[in-house]
Amino acid sequence: MFDFQLLGTDGAARAGVYRTPHGEIETPVFMPVGTQATVKAVSPRDLRDLDASIVLANTYHLYLRPGDELIAEQGGLHAFMGWDGPILTDSGGFQVFSLAERRQVDADGVTFRSHLDGSEHRFTPEVSIGIQENLGADVIVCFDECAPADDYDYNVEAMDRTHAWAERCKEAKTRDDQALFGIIQGGVYPDLRRESARFLTGLGFDGYAIGGLSVGETKVQMHETLEIVTPILPADQPRYLMGVGTPRDLVECVARGVDMFDCVLPTRTARTGAALTRLGRINMRNAQYAEDPRPIEPGCDCYACANFSRAYVRHLATRNEILGHQLLSIHNLHLMVTIARELREAVLAGRFPAYREAFWAARRAAKSDQ
Amino acid sequence: MFDFQLLGTDGAARAGVYRTPHGEIETPVFMPVGTQATVKAVSPRDLRDLDASIVLANTYHLYLRPGDELIAEQGGLHAFMGWDGPILTDSGGFQVFSLAERRQVDADGVTFRSHLDGSEHRFTPEVSIGIQENLGADVIVCFDECAPADDYDYNVEAMDRTHAWAERCKEAKTRDDQALFGIIQGGVYPDLRRESARFLTGLGFDGYAIGGLSVGETKVQMHETLEIVTPILPADQPRYLMGVGTPRDLVECVARGVDMFDCVLPTRTARTGAALTRLGRINMRNAQYAEDPRPIEPGCDCYACANFSRAYVRHLATRNEILGHQLLSIHNLHLMVTIARELREAVLAGRFPAYREAFWAARRAAKSDQ
Repeated sequence: MFDFQLLGTDGAARAGVYRTPHGEIETPVFMPVGTQATVKAVSPRDLRDLDASIVLANTYHLYLRPGDELIAEQGGLHAFMGWDGPILTDSGGFQVFSLAERRQVDADGVTFRSHLDGSEHRFTPEVSIGIQENLGADVIVCFDECAPADDYDYNVEAMDRTHAWAERCKEAKTRDDQALFGIIQGGVYPDLRRESARFLTGLGFDGYAIGGLSVGETKVQMHETLEIVTPILPADQPRYLMGVGTPRDLVECVARGVDMFDCVLPTRTARTGAALTRLGRINMRNAQYAEDPRPIEPGCDCYACANFSRAYVRHLATRNEILGHQLLSIHNLHLMVTIARELREAVLAGRFPAYREAFWAARRAAKSDQ
Repeated sequence: MFDFQLLGTDGAARAGVYRTPHGEIETPVFMPVGTQATVKAVSPRDLRDLDASIVLANTYHLYLRPGDELIAEQGGLHAFMGWDGPILTDSGGFQVFSLAERRQVDADGVTFRSHLDGSEHRFTPEVSIGIQENLGADVIVCFDECAPADDYDYNVEAMDRTHAWAERCKEAKTRDDQALFGIIQGGVYPDLRRESARFLTGLGFDGYAIGGLSVGETKVQMHETLEIVTPILPADQPRYLMGVGTPRDLVECVARGVDMFDCVLPTRTARTGAALTRLGRINMRNAQYAEDPRPIEPGCDCYACANFSRAYVRHLATRNEILGHQLLSIHNLHLMVTIARELREAVLAGRFPAYREAFWAARRAAKSDQ
C-alpha cells in the first residue's frame, strides 16, 4: 500500500516517488498545512490547481475541535475536508509542548489544559496513535517531545522519552493503510541526533521525521544537524523535515537529503499581506506597489499572478479583503510547490548544483539591485 | 453596444437578455456585490463557476480607496479586479447619505467627510459620473439622494434634487460604452413615486433603477411601490431594484416586473456563518449541525454543497476559518443566481405562477415541520 522509490540522487539531494493509499507524492515535496482540516483561505480545488499533492493536518487542534471521533464518524479526514489526496497528521506533540497550558510530563505521557477553554486532557503515545487512526491520514507520526534547542540535559531527557514513546506508538498502531514515521529529536547536539537516528532506524519505521528544528536554532545548526542525521537514515525511505520552511530552506535542505517539508509560513505570511518570492519576501501593503501593474512575482503562472496586478493585490491587502488572503496564499503555496518540483527535476537531470547556484545568484543580484 | 430584448412575460414578470460591451446578461438576474472591487471571499473564477453574469461595485468606496484615477490608469475596473464580464457601479449617493460623515447637502451636490479618515470630499452629479467613467463599468447610474422612507417633506426635497441631478448626469456623461440608468426615488409615497417614474422616463435613460427601498419600509410597502412604478417604465428597457434582497424578494419582485437585483446579504450573512436556503436562513454555527452529513442545502449543486457536509461547514464557521466564509458565500450567491435563473425559465415557460406558488408552499411546509 506504501512504496517509496528513489528515482535519482545528485550529491545528497534526492528525487523519488512515494505511493500512498490516496495517490502518489513526487519528492521533494512541500506540504501545505491545514491545521483545522483546512489550508487557511485555500479550497481543495485551489490546492489541486496549484499542484499541491499532500496536505498536513494537526492532531492536537482536530482532537480538541471538532474531535477525532466526530471526524471518524464523518468518514475520516479525507471525506470531512473534501481532500481525496494524501494527508499527513502530526502527533500533537509539538502543540502540546508549545501551545497547551499547564502541561505535566511524566514517563507515560503528558497532562495539559486546552489553550481554547482550559479543559484538562492527557496525551500518551497510545492516545496520539488512536486519534491519528480516527483521523485516518495516510501518514501518521510518533508522539514525541520537542525540547528547547539550547538545553542539553533537557534534550537528553526528552529524547529518551521520545524513544520510549516511539516503541509504544509502533506497538499501538493497528491500521495497515497508514504509514508511521518515527521522529528524530536531540536538539542541536550531534551526539544526541546521531543516537536518536540510530535508535529509531534500529526500531524500524516507514519513514523518518526530523523534529525540533526551525525552533530557534541558527540556519548553520539546522544544516549541520541534517548533515549528521540524513546519512544515517535508510536511502529507501522518505525523510520529512518538520515545520520547515522558506524557499531557501527547501533548496538547502534538499541539498542535505530531505524529501518532505511542511510549514505554515506561506499561508501565515499571506494573511499579513506578504508575498514569498524566489528573491525574498515582499510586503504587498507597501505604498510602492500601489500602481504597480506587474504580477506579484513576474514569471509566476499561479492563478493570482496570471490574473491580478500588484496594484490590485495591494488594494486588497490594505483593505484587509479576504480575496487578498486567498490570492497571496495561493501564490505563496504555489511558489513552494513549484520550487520543490524544480528541485526534483534538477536532481533527475543531474544539475542540482547548477540550480542551487542559480537560485542564490539571483538573490544576490536582487539584493545588490536595491 | 447595449440592447435589452424582452423575450417573454408572464403577468408582470419578465424574462429578457441585456447585451453589454462585456457580455450578455440573462434577466431576471442577481448581481453579487463587490464593494471594494472584490466580491468578498469569492474569486472571479469562483464567480464564473457559480454562474454569476454581472457584478456590482461601489463608487464611494473605490473613489476613496484606491481611487478611481488609479483604477483608470490600471486599465479600468474590469482589468483591475480580473473580471471580464459586465459590471454595474452605483453612484456613491447611497453611501454618501448613509456612511459618510458630516454631510452638507445643497442644490449643487454634497460635501462630506470620509468614514475612513475624516478627510473632506464633495460629490456632485458631474463628479459621480466622472468617477464612474474612470471606473469604466458597463452600467452606471445617476447620482441621487435616498431619503428616510417615513418623511414626506424630505422625500419631496430629495426627489426634486435627484431629478435635477439626473438631468445633469445625463448631460455630463461622455462615454458611449456605458449605459446610464436613472434612479427613481419618492420613498413610500405613491404620488412621489409616480412623479419620479414619469419625470425620469420623460428625460429618457438606458434603464431605470428603483432606489430607496429595502431601507426600513415594510415588504407590503415595497411591493405596493413596485406595483405603482413598474407599469410606468418602458417595457423595452431593464429595471433594477437596488439593494434587494432575499430569495423571497426575488420571487415577489420579479412578480412585480423587476429584472435586476443586487444585495450584500448573501455574502454578509455568509461571513456570520449563516446559509441562505430556499426554505429560509440557517445558522451553520448551530450545534445541531455538528454531525450532520448532509450538504448545506440538499439538492443544491454548488461547489460547497457538492463537496462538503454541514458538519464540516459548521466546524469551519465555529473556528472562524476563511474557507467557511468562502463556502457559505459561494453557496448563498449560487442560490440567488439559481433562483433568478429559475424565475426566468418559469416566465419563458409560462409557468411563473406555479413556480411562485411552489416556492411559498415549500416554505410553509418547512415551517410547519419545525
